[in-house]
Amino acid sequence: MLKGTNASSGIGIGNAVIVEEKELVIKRETVRDAAAEVERFKGALDLTLKKTEELAADLATRVGEKEAEIMQGHMMLLMDPMLTGEIETAITGESICAEYAIEQVCTTYADLFASMDDELMQQRATDMRDIKTRMQRELLGVESVDIASLPAGTILVAKDLTPSMTAGIKPENVAGIVTELGGKTSHSAILARALEIPAVVAVPDLMNQVKNGHVIVLDGSEGTVYIDPDQNVVDDFSAKREKFLKEKKELEQYIGKPTVTKDGVRIELVANIGKPEDLEKVLQYDGEGVGLFRTEFLFMDRTAMPTEEEQFEAYKTVAEGLKGKPVIIRTLDIGGDKEIPYMGLTKDENPFLGYRAIRFCLDRKDDVYKPQLRALLRASAYGNIKIMVPMVTCIEELREAKALIEEIKKELDEQNIPYKKDIEVGIMVETAAASLMADVFAKEAAFFSIGTNDLTQYTMSVDRGNDKVSYLYSTFNPAVLRSIKRIITCGREAGIMVGMCGEAASDPLMIPLLLAFGLNEFSMSASAILYSRKLITGYSTQELQAVADKAMSFATAAEVESYMREFMAGQA
Amino acid sequence: MLKGTNASSGIGIGNAVIVEEKELVIKRETVRDAAAEVERFKGALDLTLKKTEELAADLATRVGEKEAEIMQGHMMLLMDPMLTGEIETAITGESICAEYAIEQVCTTYADLFASMDDELMQQRATDMRDIKTRMQRELLGVESVDIASLPAGTILVAKDLTPSMTAGIKPENVAGIVTELGGKTSHSAILARALEIPAVVAVPDLMNQVKNGHVIVLDGSEGTVYIDPDQNVVDDFSAKREKFLKEKKELEQYIGKPTVTKDGVRIELVANIGKPEDLEKVLQYDGEGVGLFRTEFLFMDRTAMPTEEEQFEAYKTVAEGLKGKPVIIRTLDIGGDKEIPYMGLTKDENPFLGYRAIRFCLDRKDDVYKPQLRALLRASAYGNIKIMVPMVTCIEELREAKALIEEIKKELDEQNIPYKKDIEVGIMVETAAASLMADVFAKEAAFFSIGTNDLTQYTMSVDRGNDKVSYLYSTFNPAVLRSIKRIITCGREAGIMVGMCGEAASDPLMIPLLLAFGLNEFSMSASAILYSRKLITGYSTQELQAVADKAMSFATAAEVESYMREFMAGQA
Repeated sequence: MLKGTNASSGIGIGNAVIVEEKELVIKRETVRDAAAEVERFKGALDLTLKKTEELAADLATRVGEKEAEIMQGHMMLLMDPMLTGEIETAITGESICAEYAIEQVCTTYADLFASMDDELMQQRATDMRDIKTRMQRELLGVESVDIASLPAGTILVAKDLTPSMTAGIKPENVAGIVTELGGKTSHSAILARALEIPAVVAVPDLMNQVKNGHVIVLDGSEGTVYIDPDQNVVDDFSAKREKFLKEKKELEQYIGKPTVTKDGVRIELVANIGKPEDLEKVLQYDGEGVGLFRTEFLFMDRTAMPTEEEQFEAYKTVAEGLKGKPVIIRTLDIGGDKEIPYMGLTKDENPFLGYRAIRFCLDRKDDVYKPQLRALLRASAYGNIKIMVPMVTCIEELREAKALIEEIKKELDEQNIPYKKDIEVGIMVETAAASLMADVFAKEAAFFSIGTNDLTQYTMSVDRGNDKVSYLYSTFNPAVLRSIKRIITCGREAGIMVGMCGEAASDPLMIPLLLAFGLNEFSMSASAILYSRKLITGYSTQELQAVADKAMSFATAAEVESYMREFMAGQA
Repeated sequence: MLKGTNASSGIGIGNAVIVEEKELVIKRETVRDAAAEVERFKGALDLTLKKTEELAADLATRVGEKEAEIMQGHMMLLMDPMLTGEIETAITGESICAEYAIEQVCTTYADLFASMDDELMQQRATDMRDIKTRMQRELLGVESVDIASLPAGTILVAKDLTPSMTAGIKPENVAGIVTELGGKTSHSAILARALEIPAVVAVPDLMNQVKNGHVIVLDGSEGTVYIDPDQNVVDDFSAKREKFLKEKKELEQYIGKPTVTKDGVRIELVANIGKPEDLEKVLQYDGEGVGLFRTEFLFMDRTAMPTEEEQFEAYKTVAEGLKGKPVIIRTLDIGGDKEIPYMGLTKDENPFLGYRAIRFCLDRKDDVYKPQLRALLRASAYGNIKIMVPMVTCIEELREAKALIEEIKKELDEQNIPYKKDIEVGIMVETAAASLMADVFAKEAAFFSIGTNDLTQYTMSVDRGNDKVSYLYSTFNPAVLRSIKRIITCGREAGIMVGMCGEAASDPLMIPLLLAFGLNEFSMSASAILYSRKLITGYSTQELQAVADKAMSFATAAEVESYMREFMAGQA
């Protein structure tokens, strides 16, 4: 038994296939025609870019927008004029071959990133080395290992997996991943989790102990790997795996069932999506609509803004695809962390407290916000679209957005363009200010959707991406729970729908509390819908009141969470 | 009449003294003994550093900690090993004279800073040019203009003022400042405001129009300058100035008066300080104690942490200086914006939501927090010290700090070292989480002090240093006011003192609301104390309830502020 880092949960049983990329030999060759060599480089760059784009699109469809972002990150690197410019300069300035110029420039950057004491930068170093090798492989005509056509039941064993290799894996063939290097937060590990493939990484001396064809058993939750184990180990883990898969299968009975609590409260169980393509999964898992369509992805990985027409098409596709089910579309929520170069956004000193979302949109009405709102209104003729304004802190922001919508409605009327006359305009409640003023907002917003990720972040004054303080980030903190309860109460008292589209909405420990508080709508990743339906239909909101009262009596997040764990254990 | 930018309010009348720094001629000279030249450079560096330190200390005593920071910034530049290292390398590597090496290196940096699209960097460019010239002047033996010994009633006229020149001004002699260049946010303008000298900057073509001895009248609030005006203009402005000064004078009658409202509510009117030296002003303006002693300054502009002993001395000086009046000392509040190199703090992606204040201190108990708490406890034997924990979000943080204090008390008991046995430990309430949990905190904190600057920032999710979004930063926002009211109510219900040490505590428009809410203690810059006492003693908290109720009925900051303006106008 070997011990590594648990990178993706689940149990994998199968036969080892050792994947080793051929080490490329890159020599410094002088070229006579530097201009031709630059063209050769550009050809390889284009091919790499094209393949990366395909991987990204494939991931977006098969896995999700967030995972596709990793490959989009590679595309950004490949399209960075600084990088390609330096490579071209190296080729022409030193008359060296493209392979060597790439080696030089990319290695310099990778080393620079790796030397920074920052996990994100470390990941960028890995990404940089990945694209380096892939461009060189295109130049040298070296095929990369065809990871897409492994036999079913493969346990993929490798020294390390690059993000692009992981992205190419077909989960139907790969029963597990074990690597000697890597970490829990590497892009490869993130992708393995998204693909739902059990994985253990950072297993010391792995490559010396495994041979092709070995039977391998791995437990991705525990971080353990058994090489060529006794039959009883295989049997044990097979049984465990069966149980896991059976529970997953059983959830399918919840397809088509209404989401109603035992005491008859109807709940809307909807999905978060980022692209029209994501609808497929929503329908597969029987989502009752979309509670959050993030429109940022229409704006990312491009060199110019999407036109009103492009946006209209995307929104219309989603509206039509849902066949009358509601879809809440959030207007552009960029700035802060999400930098979009052509938007002219610069990095703020404190991006999360800066120029973003509705602040940015109201400042850029003519070129950004109006085209988006117009596209949304036009698309609303084709389905049940609702508009959601993010990051609101002042009532003036909602008023201004609504006034702009009214103005556009008039224009559309004059041009005889159809739209949903009574389109609902609601807000994302995710700042302390909006929570404190929820009663005031409830009078002017058609609905609330609580964004628990940001609400927790702002309430606790903690950047959850910051490892040094992320221990403070907990939606179970009584302060956050009080804020959530208040928002729901204010919304319900005013008679508007209150939903939640943050991660807490699908947290099994949180669902009982949210039901007790009176939340109407739970929006989550599509794959969490059926399990949530199972949970919700098993509860009575009446009976949960006492649970919520008890949970709200604690002073710390740890006490609340531990109480909810106890409660859940008692339910099972 | 000339029009410029209003840089520091007040009216100045006097005679022009044109101040022009002699342009230094810096030539590239070769030196034979580079080592000796390096020593020459080091001598000039030391002298410049020493004079800057004197200016800083002088400013700290005469004006304030914040203003002294500007000169401390110059010291940081002068002590930067990158800068001095590069200059030494230039001298030895190229065998050039120190003057030229300084010119080369400093100009490169200044140009770099100036090229950045960032106001702070522009200021650093000015600072860099200032220290460059001052080191060169030391080397060349060129005396700088003796700005400290100008005749009384001088209107200082200059093309531009460097921060170090402005810092040397004695306000008793200088009735006003007019410059052709500069801006409202330049360090010189900031210093002028701190010195309370009326100033108008950025006056086009100024130097061609003024001669030495000209009578000059300037209105620093309007940004207007009259050169050699008619007598009636002089008379008009003299009258205006008299009125301004008279009102200032009248405030002196409030020295020694108790701060009690018309309906008999006793208020503590205390000061914010940053250094023991600041006590002088507190006593001068009759502060009833110190509501916030920021201990960061003990840790800044140094190359190593202050020892427990050094801290003890500083805290003891303050405690003794206040002769039994209370002093609330805030434990180290660094991180985020305040980078202290030797602390090993790195820049967070979102500093204000990052590793700072109590988060940092609890993570660095042994080398940082314990020595500070021990120094505070030891000093508490010499006066009425209270300990305040900043940036609290969870009750666990307060508990951990208090446990550490108990542990140190035991150590001190064992060593027979005296301390205030019943020392109060309170918290700064400045996060949304602490506000939401104020009832819980009130049971375990000895007092609250509301930090409105951060509370507003976190409630509104806005970095007030960010120009693009600072329009959202308003303590009059109803969300912030509700939060403040809640904190005061929770504290008062639990029977603990609730103070405020943010800027709002001295805002004339805010004071009536705070009195109505029941705030016990107002902490502000010493110079605002007497005017605040005048206001507070003129109100009845009972009568203010209706005003507060009305103010709290509005939905926007603009409405609240405009209502409070109206109310104030009705009072006058």
